[in-house]
Amino acid sequence: MSLILGIDPGSRKTGFGIVNQVGAKLEYVTSGVIRLESFPTFPERLNNLYICLTEVIEQWTPQAAAIEQVFMGRSADSALKLGHARGAAMLAATQAGLDVSEYAARKVKQAVVGKGGADKVQVQHMVQFLLKLPGLPQEDAADALAVALCHAHTQAGLVRVAGSRHSRRGRWLE
Amino acid sequence: MSLILGIDPGSRKTGFGIVNQVGAKLEYVTSGVIRLESFPTFPERLNNLYICLTEVIEQWTPQAAAIEQVFMGRSADSALKLGHARGAAMLAATQAGLDVSEYAARKVKQAVVGKGGADKVQVQHMVQFLLKLPGLPQEDAADALAVALCHAHTQAGLVRVAGSRHSRRGRWLE
Repeated sequence: MSLILGIDPGSRKTGFGIVNQVGAKLEYVTSGVIRLESFPTFPERLNNLYICLTEVIEQWTPQAAAIEQVFMGRSADSALKLGHARGAAMLAATQAGLDVSEYAARKVKQAVVGKGGADKVQVQHMVQFLLKLPGLPQEDAADALAVALCHAHTQAGLVRVAGSRHSRRGRWLE
Repeated sequence: MSLILGIDPGSRKTGFGIVNQVGAKLEYVTSGVIRLESFPTFPERLNNLYICLTEVIEQWTPQAAAIEQVFMGRSADSALKLGHARGAAMLAATQAGLDVSEYAARKVKQAVVGKGGADKVQVQHMVQFLLKLPGLPQEDAADALAVALCHAHTQAGLVRVAGSRHSRRGRWLE
């Protein structure tokens, strides 16, 4: 059993999601959106992002964290704001002793939908399907769950490669 | 007596400086540069920036923090990196209970050198002069001290305005 925290940071809304990896099976644990619009100042937003994520980590004690890499096809101003939020999210994880893995958006979509160019709605639908959710997850929560799933797949791949030295069947299939 | 922490954040080097405001007098307390290049991963850099700044705050217990506003005449990629560092620096201050004031670069230079278009070397020289330092401060430490001085001047101005309701002489001159 291994809990993986996925984070989709933003300075107005930050999505989070936790999946549980039991062998090759992946189970939904929890997800949510931290809404920051109501805090009047930017430092207060960051602080509350940090506090809320720290609470999530303390409550669920995941073993790893994953976050989407950002490539900047956007303005410098929005990059700066996003950087603050990503920094606060990374800090919440590293301060709690978690390693933070980063995955390119294309890799996350490839892992979840099967094609790197998938759109947000496709990601939401595949996250719902893969984790057997009763309804469509909120967009930011879906992105957070997707990056957690990507981490799980990548780790499973690593274990499989490592395991294949000793056995033709990867350990993740046992 | 009021200690003001100035911060000049960067993902490779972060400058900090503390000045003590006693009435209208400003005294140098401490300054330094947190060097982050040696940490292999970006999350570790952020974490160490946060930890080191938190230690500075715990050691000196300033009453306020000040940071330079950023206007993005730079690439989105460098804005993103800077955002992470600024986010970590803001968090260290807000987590320690400090308000964080932001000042435009022009305002900082205006407060310290007397002209908004001053260059970095002029800022270093004026910080050395104003705080009676024995030598030229390192560039990032000088920028951090400059924003702390700007905050002190601004606060002094606010006190003067507030005081002028009761007295023609501003309290900051007493």
